[in-house]
Amino acid sequence: MANKNDTSVVIDGKVFTLSGYESEEYLQKVAAYINNKISEIKSEDGFRKQPLDVQAILIELNIADDYFKAKRQADMLQNEMAEKDKLIYDLKHDSVSAQIKIDSNLAEIKELKEEILKYQKNIVRLETELEDMKK
Amino acid sequence: MANKNDTSVVIDGKVFTLSGYESEEYLQKVAAYINNKISEIKSEDGFRKQPLDVQAILIELNIADDYFKAKRQADMLQNEMAEKDKLIYDLKHDSVSAQIKIDSNLAEIKELKEEILKYQKNIVRLETELEDMKK
Repeated sequence: MANKNDTSVVIDGKVFTLSGYESEEYLQKVAAYINNKISEIKSEDGFRKQPLDVQAILIELNIADDYFKAKRQADMLQNEMAEKDKLIYDLKHDSVSAQIKIDSNLAEIKELKEEILKYQKNIVRLETELEDMKK
Repeated sequence: MANKNDTSVVIDGKVFTLSGYESEEYLQKVAAYINNKISEIKSEDGFRKQPLDVQAILIELNIADDYFKAKRQADMLQNEMAEKDKLIYDLKHDSVSAQIKIDSNLAEIKELKEEILKYQKNIVRLETELEDMKK
């Protein structure tokens, strides 16, 4: 496992030192996202009139909404994926069936050509015999 | 568009009336999720020693982390999906090629069989001619 590391981020003007296994890049991204959310929501008139604890819950609701939307998208993709997997399975199955058909057709073509060669030889033989008799 | 509706949820012991287009079921699910997060994080010793504004940011970080993880999963699935779409495209293309091959083989088989029929008739004719000459 990677080493734990300390990363300082600034959120809502306050410095936080986060300790964990996540990369600094990731934690800065999360911090930037939260700062963005906070400044977005602070620009709404109604928000600034709320007490601080209510403000905090409203921000949490907002982030949780993003979470559920991302989760819903992931779930939808997962379902779509299952459908695509089923389609891929069917297509691969069809492809094997088609190849078997092609192989069997090619074998039949080979046999028919051999048969034709036999008939052609037979005809040459019969024609020669006829020629000889006509002499 | 659906009508806006008001839904009351309880978060961290406080009642919030949320107004929006989301269903009550969805908002209750989001509220339950946040309450769960809060009680989870409150059970950690270090958390309770923090001032309230820091506590709020820690909860926000926690929820944002869930959001980024769900988003990362959705992005990964999206990439996987693009690969599967490519595979499906290739398999469908192969299937069309295989069907063209099968059709062409079947046409060749039909022609060869007609050719054989012609040779067989020819042989019967030559054999009859020979029989007649031998009489």
